[in-house]
Amino acid sequence: MTLAVRYLTARTLDTAPAENPAPGPGQVEIAPAYVGICGTDLHIFHGDMDARVSTPAVLGHEMSGRIVRVGAGVEGWAPGDAVTVMPLRWDDTCPACRAGHQHICRHLDFIGIDSPGAMQQRWTVPATTLVRLPDDLPLDHAALVEPTAVAVHDVGRAQVREGEKAVVVGGGPVGVLIALVARAAGAEVRVVELSPHRRLLAEELGLTAWDPADGDLPELVRQWTGDAGADVAFEVSGAQGGVDTAVDVLGVRGRLCLVAIHPRPREVNLHRFFWRELTLVGARLYERADFEKAVSLVADGTVAAGRLISKVVPLTQAPAAFEALEGGGDVMKILVDCTDDTQGAAV
Amino acid sequence: MTLAVRYLTARTLDTAPAENPAPGPGQVEIAPAYVGICGTDLHIFHGDMDARVSTPAVLGHEMSGRIVRVGAGVEGWAPGDAVTVMPLRWDDTCPACRAGHQHICRHLDFIGIDSPGAMQQRWTVPATTLVRLPDDLPLDHAALVEPTAVAVHDVGRAQVREGEKAVVVGGGPVGVLIALVARAAGAEVRVVELSPHRRLLAEELGLTAWDPADGDLPELVRQWTGDAGADVAFEVSGAQGGVDTAVDVLGVRGRLCLVAIHPRPREVNLHRFFWRELTLVGARLYERADFEKAVSLVADGTVAAGRLISKVVPLTQAPAAFEALEGGGDVMKILVDCTDDTQGAAV
Repeated sequence: MTLAVRYLTARTLDTAPAENPAPGPGQVEIAPAYVGICGTDLHIFHGDMDARVSTPAVLGHEMSGRIVRVGAGVEGWAPGDAVTVMPLRWDDTCPACRAGHQHICRHLDFIGIDSPGAMQQRWTVPATTLVRLPDDLPLDHAALVEPTAVAVHDVGRAQVREGEKAVVVGGGPVGVLIALVARAAGAEVRVVELSPHRRLLAEELGLTAWDPADGDLPELVRQWTGDAGADVAFEVSGAQGGVDTAVDVLGVRGRLCLVAIHPRPREVNLHRFFWRELTLVGARLYERADFEKAVSLVADGTVAAGRLISKVVPLTQAPAAFEALEGGGDVMKILVDCTDDTQGAAV
Repeated sequence: MTLAVRYLTARTLDTAPAENPAPGPGQVEIAPAYVGICGTDLHIFHGDMDARVSTPAVLGHEMSGRIVRVGAGVEGWAPGDAVTVMPLRWDDTCPACRAGHQHICRHLDFIGIDSPGAMQQRWTVPATTLVRLPDDLPLDHAALVEPTAVAVHDVGRAQVREGEKAVVVGGGPVGVLIALVARAAGAEVRVVELSPHRRLLAEELGLTAWDPADGDLPELVRQWTGDAGADVAFEVSGAQGGVDTAVDVLGVRGRLCLVAIHPRPREVNLHRFFWRELTLVGARLYERADFEKAVSLVADGTVAAGRLISKVVPLTQAPAAFEALEGGGDVMKILVDCTDDTQGAAV
């Protein structure tokens, strides 16, 4: 028997033994090494997603690990292979899938929300979700591949080009990853972030971070851009003020990539969209190519994953880590270490 | 002396004699034939744009006419040439102009709002604004070129492709023109319009028009699109409900082209933009290529301009026509006939 972190009800996680049936046809069993705690996991922990999540639920979708067993018919994968998982399954029949947008499948199974996730010592997934990791990529860094894939998708949706100027509104893990990926695409980047700790971390990564309390952000952007306004803005804050800022900093034909989730409608200055011919583009999750690009960006150090990891906690302390995160605090990414020497997991 | 229609103050127009100095270098003098009354002209008439408009102001920017005199240095144009005018002047130095988006120039002179317009018997403009009309295009039809150029620009901004399904929210003159241009681009189109008269006119043009009171529009669109949702929506209503409808009818990766002016911020369901990866694209005015395409669409009958003209009034009755339009009524486009036989205008 192995252990799993389970969400039971609002603000209640436990760790409990889990069954480990042999992987079925087309499946692989993985020994997760590191699993990141994501904002979505916190939403579930808060009870905000109880209508969607079946309990007890094993959380976790930002992961790295090694294959332990492969099921019948699985080719190209062997025990010991270092992998991450693109945690999506789709129906291949809905209008979105037929149009080639499987990541927006109407019946999307987001593994780790809609079905059991990675925060356990053994995890069985379809082999089709596997993404190979380079042998020399540390597995703790590799746990950042999934959020990096989000950033790659966002930067792609915004069509960031060499020499453009981009403003990232919100400097949490996803915002900083977007900033790093946009910079790698050739953009000059400014990160707008309230938290001094997060601004400091962004600066340590060579990014320039602005405190919105520092003054008139659109004016700062005008000075920075020679009066033209930004080419691209990313709304990663989830706040009304973030939407306003992202719209206000854009120049003519600027693109606003909407990354954050806004559960309620927001007021949007549509006159400015008309007047400056702005574009707003929604971005959700990622596609396979984004995931593979993310592996290479983490592997080659473009995304300095190690710098984004605030803390690593053992699996048995994951419930306490969620409680600590509830209080906010000066953290970026917390990883859960799922390895367990007594089980001999091949990590 | 010739006559001009002048805006004096809210709800007050007159007709008054105007000077006709010889056109300066690079200028041409035109005898306007027909000038359309646009929604923007009505906004000015209502007094809504007094902060922008210097009075007395000669209105009118949707026009056709013939050249009367050409100034020094004007090549390629001669008296008698049938023309319309792309009523924009830009500074060529602001960031938008330098980026090639002159129609969004920061110091744009929209002729007919910011400087004297066409609703007069002689009108002097820079030769650079001229757009040639085919000799066999009736000049009343040609007065529809300018709003058709708006529609061409909107359909281009929305990147409408062959076989796509498009919903036009708002079936006034611009909405119907968008529907005709989108249809010519190969799209199937539905027009959503409250007014029975406007729906009838759309149907007479071979378009299908829906009454929003008829039921659940998103459900109607689902049935029409085989459950996929629309590829494109145009928001031409200017109302909060129109924004909601345009967002709600779109399928995955759908594009919403924002055409109407929304003076105040609107509530927008950003969660849907995220969830379905929608795009919102602002569209303003037109570029030269749009204008030239519009000439050909009106000339070849793709845009049945004659069907959109509800009434033609002589210039001296333009003030009364504005007052009548204030009451709404079942009209599409009203043209002002600026020809004056006593002046011998060559129309």
